[in-house]
Amino acid sequence: MADRLSVAIVGGTHGNEFSGIRLVQQWQQRHWPYANLAIQTLYANPQANAANRRYLDADLNREFVEARLSDPSLVHYEGQRAKAINQQLGPKGDSSTDLVIDLHNTTSNMGPTLILLQDGDWERQLAAFVTIKMPTAVVLMELERSYQQWGYLCTVGKRGVMVEVGPQPQSVLRHDILEQMAELTELVLAFTSLEYAGALPELPTTVEVFSSVEHHRLPLDSTGQPLAMVHQRVEGSDFTALNPGEPIFQYFDGNVACFDSPRALYPTFVNEAAYYDNHMAFSLADKLTLTVPRQA
Amino acid sequence: MADRLSVAIVGGTHGNEFSGIRLVQQWQQRHWPYANLAIQTLYANPQANAANRRYLDADLNREFVEARLSDPSLVHYEGQRAKAINQQLGPKGDSSTDLVIDLHNTTSNMGPTLILLQDGDWERQLAAFVTIKMPTAVVLMELERSYQQWGYLCTVGKRGVMVEVGPQPQSVLRHDILEQMAELTELVLAFTSLEYAGALPELPTTVEVFSSVEHHRLPLDSTGQPLAMVHQRVEGSDFTALNPGEPIFQYFDGNVACFDSPRALYPTFVNEAAYYDNHMAFSLADKLTLTVPRQA
Repeated sequence: MADRLSVAIVGGTHGNEFSGIRLVQQWQQRHWPYANLAIQTLYANPQANAANRRYLDADLNREFVEARLSDPSLVHYEGQRAKAINQQLGPKGDSSTDLVIDLHNTTSNMGPTLILLQDGDWERQLAAFVTIKMPTAVVLMELERSYQQWGYLCTVGKRGVMVEVGPQPQSVLRHDILEQMAELTELVLAFTSLEYAGALPELPTTVEVFSSVEHHRLPLDSTGQPLAMVHQRVEGSDFTALNPGEPIFQYFDGNVACFDSPRALYPTFVNEAAYYDNHMAFSLADKLTLTVPRQA
Repeated sequence: MADRLSVAIVGGTHGNEFSGIRLVQQWQQRHWPYANLAIQTLYANPQANAANRRYLDADLNREFVEARLSDPSLVHYEGQRAKAINQQLGPKGDSSTDLVIDLHNTTSNMGPTLILLQDGDWERQLAAFVTIKMPTAVVLMELERSYQQWGYLCTVGKRGVMVEVGPQPQSVLRHDILEQMAELTELVLAFTSLEYAGALPELPTTVEVFSSVEHHRLPLDSTGQPLAMVHQRVEGSDFTALNPGEPIFQYFDGNVACFDSPRALYPTFVNEAAYYDNHMAFSLADKLTLTVPRQA
């Protein structure tokens, strides 16, 4: 077992999400209090940030799949950037980095959210640790694909998580959101250090998490234009139960579409600005109570 | 006196402010109930909207000053567009349009705000009418320049007002914000029709308005980079009294700057995303109680 785990904190994967960009700038020279962690920072997409856009040519946070990383014909900016980051922090699947923490903002009202892409002992202990220490934090698991199949930048690490904090408009830096992102990220670091040292505190035996189950697009006309918007019942209600029969879409012609489901689910990424390119309205998650194993 | 006043409702002056774009689309074919108004709609900057940006080359809402409108060397897209709109609705200073209502969104927490650029009988009666009918609405007067000196698109009309509604992230369409914009715009139309018919209802004898007095930029380092962000005390507090001594900037080095003023003022456009290009942090307004003249 190595003396130290290698950890990368990444900001600016999306060039108009300002909190992570600010934090990696502040933390570049920071002296961290974790003796068993070797922490580096990475400013992932400087050119998109300079252009004040999410990306120049392609979403950098969808580039990290094997087929794209190994495709020499992908010569656009983010394709090149992904290959360089894969060389620096990865390579994906056989990574030199133990943990990648990628920092994101959302325009949705998701508060401080920790996104996990696997469900194992480490993740459940992390979820329990974070939500005990920061009661406003929420854990969202995205398990629809295997860890290796996701194209997210953080999957370049042996482990990868995303810190996703909102609501914050694109191209804005909010004081409160910055503090929430800093706190949640530092909790992930503290956990990682304690866990590696075999020194985790006593944790609750169960933890509540959300698990992504489906995605809803806006209804479109035959030319691909939206016929409706997200109903105000759902707007701002991330992680709040959406019950069968409640309104979800307000059509521009005055009609309302309701939630057709046998059970309540929990909206996430409601009306996120960056997802307008494919008319995504919101995602829905289940709320689960998971058992938390004791540290061996 | 003409039988009908000509009114133009303008949306999409900024291509990533979606509420006005949606409303002018919906209202293009609308049959209005005002016999003495000839209402047209204008989709001001289609190419910026197609690019999902505020503008392509220059802010269209700063182009409507005499010197720019008459400058043949201004050949960028918005320069051309301004000249075409000036021909269609203006010309500025000798306008064919009696009233231009320009629809805008802000990322700031300003609620439904009516921005007026003159302070006369008509404006005070309008302010009283709107705030009586829609108690959540706020009236903001910008009187630092004469009406003709402003570069705002709406000044192409004999009269021009802006309906400014937020908070809404750029490139998002919120149901609640859309409804507020529609309600406030319809009140301006209803007032205009009643006033022209000499049929205004009894109005209160005074009205409370805000009047813009100063603008605050973020503190910058010698290279022009921000040293601080808007303090969370001010964030989201548009139109709420900011008292002397209260924090306004949170420096990244941990220091806090406080409000140095002999009296309370009222923030507007707090942390508006579109103003990051010149590091504008917020504006400040006075709260005034104005007398409202009776209709002659």
